[in-house]
Amino acid sequence: MSIFIKNALLNGKKQNILIEDNLISYIGKDKQEADETINANKKAILPGLINTHTHSSMTLLRSYADDLPLMDWLQTKIWPAEAKLKPEHIRAGTKLACLEMIKSGTTCFNDMYFYPEEIAKTTSELGMRAVIGIPVIDIFPNPLVDSSEKAIISKIEELGKFGDLITPAIAPHAVYTVTKEKLKWIGDYSEENNLLVHTHLSETEQENKDCVKKYGKTPTQLLKDCNLLSSRLIAAHSVWLNEEDAKSLGNNKVTLAHCPAANMKLSVGHAFNFALTRSCGCNICLGTDGASSNNNLDMFNVMKMAALLQKYDYDNPTLMNASETFNLATRAGAQALRVNAGVIEKGKLADVILIDLKNPKLVPSHNLESSLVYSADSSCVETVIINGKIVMQNYKVEGEDRIVEEAEKSAMDLVK
Amino acid sequence: MSIFIKNALLNGKKQNILIEDNLISYIGKDKQEADETINANKKAILPGLINTHTHSSMTLLRSYADDLPLMDWLQTKIWPAEAKLKPEHIRAGTKLACLEMIKSGTTCFNDMYFYPEEIAKTTSELGMRAVIGIPVIDIFPNPLVDSSEKAIISKIEELGKFGDLITPAIAPHAVYTVTKEKLKWIGDYSEENNLLVHTHLSETEQENKDCVKKYGKTPTQLLKDCNLLSSRLIAAHSVWLNEEDAKSLGNNKVTLAHCPAANMKLSVGHAFNFALTRSCGCNICLGTDGASSNNNLDMFNVMKMAALLQKYDYDNPTLMNASETFNLATRAGAQALRVNAGVIEKGKLADVILIDLKNPKLVPSHNLESSLVYSADSSCVETVIINGKIVMQNYKVEGEDRIVEEAEKSAMDLVK
Repeated sequence: MSIFIKNALLNGKKQNILIEDNLISYIGKDKQEADETINANKKAILPGLINTHTHSSMTLLRSYADDLPLMDWLQTKIWPAEAKLKPEHIRAGTKLACLEMIKSGTTCFNDMYFYPEEIAKTTSELGMRAVIGIPVIDIFPNPLVDSSEKAIISKIEELGKFGDLITPAIAPHAVYTVTKEKLKWIGDYSEENNLLVHTHLSETEQENKDCVKKYGKTPTQLLKDCNLLSSRLIAAHSVWLNEEDAKSLGNNKVTLAHCPAANMKLSVGHAFNFALTRSCGCNICLGTDGASSNNNLDMFNVMKMAALLQKYDYDNPTLMNASETFNLATRAGAQALRVNAGVIEKGKLADVILIDLKNPKLVPSHNLESSLVYSADSSCVETVIINGKIVMQNYKVEGEDRIVEEAEKSAMDLVK
Repeated sequence: MSIFIKNALLNGKKQNILIEDNLISYIGKDKQEADETINANKKAILPGLINTHTHSSMTLLRSYADDLPLMDWLQTKIWPAEAKLKPEHIRAGTKLACLEMIKSGTTCFNDMYFYPEEIAKTTSELGMRAVIGIPVIDIFPNPLVDSSEKAIISKIEELGKFGDLITPAIAPHAVYTVTKEKLKWIGDYSEENNLLVHTHLSETEQENKDCVKKYGKTPTQLLKDCNLLSSRLIAAHSVWLNEEDAKSLGNNKVTLAHCPAANMKLSVGHAFNFALTRSCGCNICLGTDGASSNNNLDMFNVMKMAALLQKYDYDNPTLMNASETFNLATRAGAQALRVNAGVIEKGKLADVILIDLKNPKLVPSHNLESSLVYSADSSCVETVIINGKIVMQNYKVEGEDRIVEEAEKSAMDLVK
């Protein structure tokens, strides 16, 4: 399968792009033969956005419980609903999540949730790319999670069978839900097998206080003791870091998945420190978090929120500029998830989107990156190609009405 | 002209709605005869959103200058561009603004910018409702503004001729750009003539400090001395208010137009205090501000940002809940701008929008207000009716390609 995209705006110039199989094989001025041709006149070609922290199937709980104190929210609403989750809910919720992400220009996401094999199967069927984490929780029993080493190893193998689009990872939930012994095992096992690890880190001040009380050290220092600090680690939130934490994370090239919308909505009380963590060498990316705490999976929303929150909280309008922010959502995300994408270049994976430059939100054309970060929304995304296959064209995804109907039914079943 | 909207979701029930001329004349279960019928199955009918603070033609400067310190931004970029503004730029910029607002579900806006008669003419031609402020700046000369009493009175008369859709107002820019004498005259003149007044109030700490230094009182207390505190006043930003200010504003039923995105982007260093100002009795509304500092005119964006910023900055996830937030953007805005709209009821103006409930951002249907505030974007808005006339249907506005082309040309002319 080959796709010829002609007349697309790329870095300020009109270019023709050829996609062969799943790769970008040509960028230039010449016409190319292909199975399919897309005229991208008045459209820009961009790398697909990369969402480095979400719980995709939680779309079923979108807008189910809002404006509540954190513990009320968890104890009276989210946990009771989650306890009823069955594989069919996961499939319906993952489909809805993929649909929403595709429609808002995301081509790859980093997930952590129950029934990872169902998430992997559904995601690959819909043609999206994802890193799927095997959830690990062993401090208290959770009937949806088998955190034995044997089960983790077996799930990793199982997820390996879903083809190119799916990368398995281990997802220890957090330092307050996973024992130090298990964290240590994950540290060593993931190193031996070169696996990505996805966790929540220092989301709230309470988490830090509890960790210091229990272990005499911060969550970051505990992860360090467990051999978990490396470029394989994606640490979501990373809000409450001290300078020593930031240095430890940076020295080990850890990825931090900043989730500004969820942090603001749940009042975590502090803004992720972009300037500090970047200066320490961390790989900073962006994530939506789950739809029950954001409430959408839209990276345009997150880019704007991230850039504005930095400026606001650190009292400096020059912080996290548009170009840097767009980079976090593309190139840095690709690096974190080890995807050969995040930029439009020959030899890169064809995970690309076409943006309608006639959308009023992108007019006038003074600075496309500024408009993408500060003005655009999902209505600007016209075409999405993942792994060389068209998954959305002319704003339409195949089967979207059915996905929406199934998700609605499944959500009502979950909360009945 | 009459429009029959059948099967629309309204407050949780399927209803039929009849619009005759510019009013909602029937809500119920029965079929009604009409010139046009819209099947709103799987759609919700909602009051159009009301943007209570913007500078519409600044869309031409969208993404022209971002991520700069405030004074650099103004002095090196915005002011030099504005100095070149001609009526044709205002027309092109206003058209782009109206197009963007319609596409994101806004039916009415409160504007303050140069050449108000051009804004009024263009807005009414496009079928949008607006309050158009005559800009007043008299502390330093501005060649685009004639702040003489005679000129203001004459412009008010001129704006009165554009029909039902346009309400004239006086717009003294701020306490640091308008003399106390002129403010006093505006206070008295607007009272005698029952005119709305639109100003910027306490946007930055510096503004307050300078005002105290010059006048020995805060901007709010200065406006009070000038007979400007009343339900006719719309005070944009109102970030740096002390308790006495909030009480003075509340006692006089002043409207505060909170602009969270612009405040965050320009790092004003403090969050508007919703709980305090509401408890004092202020009428709180939402605004986008101009596209050069937001960078879009999308009230969905602003609703989410407002609700999240309150929760975040005042460390309380229950603050500004979804229902309250939606109310600020509809009913409260209508009250501020004295528009008989903001709610779907018999006898109200037919300023309504239809939202596509199959949009994945609105699925599942646990809580529509939560999804509208925390998840929706402009892609959810399918139809817009203003003053009983369809201005958008099936996501399309008549002539949008031409509006976009003209805006692009005009913007390039402005900054060349």
